[in-house]
Amino acid sequence: MEAISLTPVAYVKNSRSNMEDDYWGNVTSEIIITDELPEECLDGIESFSHLEVIFYFNKSEKEVKGAAHPRENKSWPKVGIFAQRKKDRPNHIGTTIVELVKREGRILTVKKLDADTDTPVLDIKPVVKEFLPERKITQPIWITELMKDYWK
Amino acid sequence: MEAISLTPVAYVKNSRSNMEDDYWGNVTSEIIITDELPEECLDGIESFSHLEVIFYFNKSEKEVKGAAHPRENKSWPKVGIFAQRKKDRPNHIGTTIVELVKREGRILTVKKLDADTDTPVLDIKPVVKEFLPERKITQPIWITELMKDYWK
Repeated sequence: MEAISLTPVAYVKNSRSNMEDDYWGNVTSEIIITDELPEECLDGIESFSHLEVIFYFNKSEKEVKGAAHPRENKSWPKVGIFAQRKKDRPNHIGTTIVELVKREGRILTVKKLDADTDTPVLDIKPVVKEFLPERKITQPIWITELMKDYWK
Repeated sequence: MEAISLTPVAYVKNSRSNMEDDYWGNVTSEIIITDELPEECLDGIESFSHLEVIFYFNKSEKEVKGAAHPRENKSWPKVGIFAQRKKDRPNHIGTTIVELVKREGRILTVKKLDADTDTPVLDIKPVVKEFLPERKITQPIWITELMKDYWK
């Protein structure tokens, strides 16, 4: 199985650096494109209200491969790593839909990005209505509980 | 800038192999977890209706770094690579929200995965309501036109 080698396209700048799980609601972040890419890589992005940011959990040093309790909380069921969004996962990839506030040159200002400052960004994509779920979404109760303070 | 090395966690099996852009609506795919991961990595996943699949466009040999016409169509505006979801992008990452049909052992059966057979999968995450956009999504007309036959 071949390894795949990726290079960051941008880095996050914001006020967060403590790997805290919750309270992302009021965090505004800048995403700064690296000097290896031309500024035109962002042209036209302001015609989208939302972006999907794919990033790398560079501070996570663990990797759950099987099943584990979300946030090590034993009152929630032990579930597989692909049934949760925990950082400590194979390949350490995070993905989040953010609100685009503005673009200035090679800097995007966004809201609702749940990544600490200096996080490497691997890709940025526009959110397109036709790619969002059509059918009703169902999810287990434990994850609704887990999300209670996430965006506060 | 350090390179990041990733290893596929699964591979896609389906009827598609021609890199066609459109007509993904009736494609059903299997996502088969590699032998390097324990089967428990999928435990509890069936309590979610939708999954987010992060994959690698392994057949794409080009990389647009600046701006380009989506699908090389000059009637659409030339926009930056991060303002479109084209395959030929830095790091060649694709992300799609799919409908989970069933899980059997280390095999997930899903609908609406727009990836050819043998595509390497880098991560699988559950779709959680609290991570979807709250505000109204806006997008430019060209991408609504581009998506016309995508899910047919």
